[in-house]
Formats: sequence, structure tokens, C-alpha cells
Amino acid sequence: MAVQTTEAAPQTVDLGPAAALSCRECSERFELGPIFACRLCFGPLEVAYDLPAGDAEELRKRIEAGPNNIWRYAPLLPVPADVAEKPSLNPGFTKLVKADNLARELGVTGGLFVKDDSGNPTHSFKDRVVAIAVEAARAFGFTTLSCSSTGNLAGAVGAAAARAGFRSCVFIPHDLEQGKVVMAAVYGGELVGIEGNYDDVNRFCSELIGDPLGEGWGFVNVNLRPYYGEGSKTLAYEICEQLGWRLPDQIVIPIASGSQLTKIDKGLQELIRLGLVEDRPYKIFGAQAEGCSPVSTAFKAGHDVVRPQKPDTIAKSLAIGNPADGPYVLDIARRTGGAVEDVNDEQVVDAIKLLARTEGIFAETAGGVTVGVTKKLIEAGLLDPALTTVVLNTGDGLKTLDAVAPTTGPSATIRPSLDAFRDAGLAR
Amino acid sequence: MAVQTTEAAPQTVDLGPAAALSCRECSERFELGPIFACRLCFGPLEVAYDLPAGDAEELRKRIEAGPNNIWRYAPLLPVPADVAEKPSLNPGFTKLVKADNLARELGVTGGLFVKDDSGNPTHSFKDRVVAIAVEAARAFGFTTLSCSSTGNLAGAVGAAAARAGFRSCVFIPHDLEQGKVVMAAVYGGELVGIEGNYDDVNRFCSELIGDPLGEGWGFVNVNLRPYYGEGSKTLAYEICEQLGWRLPDQIVIPIASGSQLTKIDKGLQELIRLGLVEDRPYKIFGAQAEGCSPVSTAFKAGHDVVRPQKPDTIAKSLAIGNPADGPYVLDIARRTGGAVEDVNDEQVVDAIKLLARTEGIFAETAGGVTVGVTKKLIEAGLLDPALTTVVLNTGDGLKTLDAVAPTTGPSATIRPSLDAFRDAGLAR
Repeated sequence: MAVQTTEAAPQTVDLGPAAALSCRECSERFELGPIFACRLCFGPLEVAYDLPAGDAEELRKRIEAGPNNIWRYAPLLPVPADVAEKPSLNPGFTKLVKADNLARELGVTGGLFVKDDSGNPTHSFKDRVVAIAVEAARAFGFTTLSCSSTGNLAGAVGAAAARAGFRSCVFIPHDLEQGKVVMAAVYGGELVGIEGNYDDVNRFCSELIGDPLGEGWGFVNVNLRPYYGEGSKTLAYEICEQLGWRLPDQIVIPIASGSQLTKIDKGLQELIRLGLVEDRPYKIFGAQAEGCSPVSTAFKAGHDVVRPQKPDTIAKSLAIGNPADGPYVLDIARRTGGAVEDVNDEQVVDAIKLLARTEGIFAETAGGVTVGVTKKLIEAGLLDPALTTVVLNTGDGLKTLDAVAPTTGPSATIRPSLDAFRDAGLAR
Repeated sequence: MAVQTTEAAPQTVDLGPAAALSCRECSERFELGPIFACRLCFGPLEVAYDLPAGDAEELRKRIEAGPNNIWRYAPLLPVPADVAEKPSLNPGFTKLVKADNLARELGVTGGLFVKDDSGNPTHSFKDRVVAIAVEAARAFGFTTLSCSSTGNLAGAVGAAAARAGFRSCVFIPHDLEQGKVVMAAVYGGELVGIEGNYDDVNRFCSELIGDPLGEGWGFVNVNLRPYYGEGSKTLAYEICEQLGWRLPDQIVIPIASGSQLTKIDKGLQELIRLGLVEDRPYKIFGAQAEGCSPVSTAFKAGHDVVRPQKPDTIAKSLAIGNPADGPYVLDIARRTGGAVEDVNDEQVVDAIKLLARTEGIFAETAGGVTVGVTKKLIEAGLLDPALTTVVLNTGDGLKTLDAVAPTTGPSATIRPSLDAFRDAGLAR
């Protein structure tokens, strides 16, 4: 396939099957490089592939013989063929937990699964996207990895950079909780507190990218964003492989920027096109917190545009008030017959506890959002309990202890005596 | 193989290849049951096996075709053959990370690996031992799972019980930090704070086991201890399989009670006996924190007995002042040509940061102890840098943030301007 380029420079980077960047709005194509917006229409760019042609059975076997991490899907990702040999945190291939106890509580009879990404190296799905960004940074000759972050991403970048041999310099709002600061700083990269809020941090990073001071810097969620985003496709690949190379009927995905949801849909479509799964209908559901629900608000109102909101929710990892991929999420939910729903903070906490109590999985607030929304969608008749359903948990409860702490404690405190224990009424 | 029993009751429990309990002191054998001390000499009991006879190559293939968790080793564990079908957190098969960056810093040329058990479901190796105890509890008809704990174990038991369908009731000192209490309580089991210290909690649990109030209760680290301990063998199995069915030359293991170290040795010996690995010398090294170093003190003094100490260290998960398996650890370290060493709290913190900075692995304080001791042993010439070395990280830094928090923070805090960033001297 010939790449239609807009620049004269020869194509030299090796990112495997990645052929070009393509504008999601106007379809204009660009050479692979550290760019993120279309030079014609300013639309977002995404990776276009020359996907492996040939026998699906052979490709499936090749994948199954690969390592127990995202690199088993290297033939479908913007990474060189020898990626598994390079130093990486090697995230992915996290557990798809058959959640029979939770299914009973929710009345799901068609099979309920939790895709538990708290099993990643720094305990969130961010390790997937950062791992791909690292390979792009290598290909483009960057020496410093950077990002703006309020939590999970800072740690994921710091850890990945340390292991892969990059310098890192990560920017955070100066007033983050100490725990998050420690997680971001412990990997030994530079951590810079910015006097301002997250918007100020983002604005500063955009300035830095355009300045000589930022030369040689790869911002995973800015100038490497088209590659970074592709990491979320691996969630789709893994879910289908772990279901026995089968599409789930329904899948519930949290929405922050909306990128993850759109890339999971992209991944499912690729599997269908490659013949790795049978083509049959699937429904994609988006989950938001009520305190930051611009997409579910638009979905319910039947709008095509997403009106920004000022976030106010305990689900901080989803608190993006102006989600870049919001309109694409609306498209996908509507096209597949899914929906977008939201739950309030109390429901988030209840859902975290429900998942912990039934399956022994302690989820981040984002996992409380997806489980809570699943429950609500079933009650509303929008999610069919007789179909196979996958719910994403994208992070770890250890990182958002504050959400459950006020309502989680000992059943009793007693003197160390059998009488005291008997009186507490807990013997059974 | 005939089991020499001391009781008349017929053998009815199915724990796979487990044939009996055997006293580690006097070798008297007992039927499988919820007992933990020899009725003749009060020595500790351990599981004796009828290990699979036959072709090693066939066994190896059977293991490799098994699930990506500890149940792939079911033929070598006290669990029924169909264990992988039962609800479990399915821990294990965590990453063996080739730590080339750390090797360079430490001058290791023979290959350095970190066995990273922070990848387990509740992020510590405790998930392994608890998973085995759960199967024993099932076999003995227990309905409540319990333990005394100061941290990792409480969460591991709560989570495993939730998933496996047991009631849980866990005992902790009443004055634990809130974070640890939340982690122990979030899985919805009963959590009881005991007014007293950890010794008081333990004493209370021993009383409860002997009382009708505790009937039907499986205390994973007391009356199920012989089974529970076997879970640590899986670390040995995984390390060898992940090295390509090869024994490591040297292995550095943290010491709390010492059980983990003795069971890893037991696991290595089994692999040799079964022909799964080639029989060649290996050295086992034990690692303690200086503030709780009864075993390393005895080792250095050339003693056979371990004199109890009052713990005072940040490595709280290793803070057992009177380690039950101390004498066995001394035996193994001496027999294999290893050693037992300790590092102080400052060295623990430095080692946590060293591992994070080089490999992107954020370890619990116990991981700081093993990495710190590895460094010290190399400097002392006791650990050969030209040989293949495996270092255990048994827990997650997220659970011991306090250890590094005082010395881990931003490189700079600046206004959101390029000038301010230039002045901070971090551009490169």
C-alpha cells in the first residue's frame, strides 16, 4: 500500500505494521512522526496500518505463541517486530475474571467477566498506552519522556522511562496529595510541580512542545498521542482471545477523554476484519460519574456534540470535563446499540464494595463507575443480562483509598478475650 | 506409598498428591487434617507427598499447558486435581524481570532477575499461600476463614474468602494505620480490632481455635499452616520454569518467620528429584532488616539457635522477632553455601529507590531489604556477581508509601512559564 504523504522526507522509522497517520475527520494521511493534529483541518490523527494479510489461523497461532503481555499482539500495533526484546514494563494480558458471584447479585445469566487491569505493572491500564508511546519515542529518537498528569499516568511514565532507559520529566499540579506525588517521584525521574491547576499544567506542556527547551521530548499524551492511544486496542484483543477468540456481546467501558472506548471499538473491528473472531453484533456501553458526565448527558439528550462540564466527582481519573473523543463515543454507542450512563459518587462507592465483596477485586473509583453503571443499565433494561458481558476495571483501589475509607472499617473492636468476642456477636 | 497413620479415622480428604502431614523434627506422620504441631514432640508439621512418578518431560509439558497461575503446579501441591475450576484469586506466575539496569549498577554480570510478586491479585506473595489454605479449608469443611495479621495477610484472606465463597473474620491490632484497615475491611468480611499488640492478637486466636466459638474456622496461618506454607514452593517452581527449567545459581529471599525461604528450598529439591531441572549447586541467601535481624545475627555468630529480638524497623512485613523457622533457615543457608545478612532502614529506602529508578519496580520495604542485602553481599564478596542471581520482591510499594515519602518529592515547583522552567535547570 502506497502511503500518500504530504512531506518530502523519506520514511525511515520502523513501527511495524503502522503505515501512516490518518486524520479522523478528513482522512488526510501523514508520514509517521511526532504529530497529533491534522495540518489541514486540525482533526485528531490516528495510526493507519498495513495489517497482516493471510491466514487467520496462522496469525492466531502466532499470537498465542507470543509472550504473556501486550507484545503478543505486536503484528497489530505500531511497534517494531522485535519489540518484545526491548526493555519495557511488558504490561497487559491481565486477568479476565469470570465474575459468577457478581453475576448472581446483578442477575446476569449470560456470563459476566471483569477485565482487571489493576494487574498491570503500575496497577492501571495506563501502562498499556505508555508502553506503546515508549516505542514511538524510541523510533523518533526522543531522549526524554514527559506528560501532564494528576495521578496514574505520572507513575506509569516514570516507571516505564526508568526501565526503558529514558530520562523522564513529568508535570503535575503542585498541590496533589502526598501519596500521588510519591508514586510519581519514586522512579527517580524529574517531577515538576506547577503552580496552578491541571489546565495550567496542560497549557504549559503545549508551550514547552513548541519551544526549543522541549526539543527531544516525547509527551506521551500530546505529541505521541496517536501511538499512545493505540495501546487501548490491546484490551479488545485480550478480551476476545481470553473469551476463546470470540466477541463479547456487551462491554462496559469508563469514559475520561473517551479515547479508550474508541480504541477498543477499533480493536474489535480489526479482529473482525482479520478473521480472528466471527463477525457478530456487539454493544458498547460508556460509563461516567454523574459529577463529570458530559458524554452521558449528551447521549441521553440525543445530542451529537458534547458540552463541557466542570468536574466534581471522587472518580478523579475520569474527571475530564471536555472529553476530546466525546463525539466519537456517542457515535459508537449509538451505532452498536449501546448506551452511555452515569452513577453518583455514593453509587460508585457502593459498586467498589460490591465488586470487592463478591470477587475479591479492589477497584479504583473508575472500576466503581463501570460496575455501578452496569448495575444501573441492567435495572433500566438497557443491558441484557442474558448476554455475555465484560466490565472493565482500569485501576487499583489502593490508589483511591480515600473513596471508601470513610465507610470502611472494623466490624468491632474488642478486648482480647473469648467473652468479649462472644459479646460482639460475630461467632458463627 | 502407605501412609503411616496415628489415628483410626479413614482418609477422606482429597488434596491431590498430599499424602500425610509429617513432623519436621521427629518425622512422625499424621493423617491430613487441620493440625499444625506434632502430637509427639510438638515440632512443626509439613505436607508429605506422593509426587508423580514417571516421565519428567511429560510432567513438564503438562505444567506448561496449564493455566498462567499457581495451579499449573497442581500436581506438586496439596490441592485436588480440579483446583483450577474452583473460584480462586488464581495468584502466581508473576513476572521474572531480567534486571539489566540494576545488574549494571550492582556489577552483576551473570544475569540478575527480580521475581516481582507485587503482580499478585492483592499485590503480595501472601495470595499464593492463602490460595492453598483456601483449598485445605474447603477439604476440611470449614466455613469461615480467619487469620491474625498486621497488613498484607488480612487483605489477602479477605479477598480470597470473598471470591471463594467463604465467610471471613480477620483479627488485627486495633491501632493499625487507616490505610491498612481499609484494605483489610473493603472485601466485606468481618474485621475485628483487638485492643492490644500483635502478640495479643495471636494469643487470642490460639484461644479461639481451642474453643467451640472457633469451630468450623480455618486460621490460614495457624491450623491450616502446614498447607498455607506450601504456597511458597510455587515461587521456586516459577523461577526455575521462567529461567527455562533451570536452577538459579543464587537466590536472595526475605526472612520474616523464615517459612518462605525453607519452602523455596523444598520446592527446588522437589524439582531436582522429579528431574524437572538438572541437579547442580545453588546458594540460598536470607535477607533481614537490621532492626529485626535475629537470624542474620545467629548466622554471623555461628549459632544454631536464634535468639528473639524486639523488632524496630520500617520493614514491618518482616518484623517477626522470634521467627519459627529460623533454625531451618540457618541450616539451609549453611548447607547451600549461602549466607544471611541484614541492612539498616536507610539502606532499605535507598534500595527501594534503586530498584524503582533502574527497573521501574516500586517494591514494598521487604523488597528494599532483599535488594539492599544483595548489594551488601556483593560488596562483601559473599554473592558472586558472575553467577545467575534471583532477588525476590514479595510486596508492593503502594502499601508502604510512608517508607519513602519523607525523601521522595518533586525536583522543583515552578510557575507555569517557560522562563521559570529554564531557571529551574531541568531542560535538557
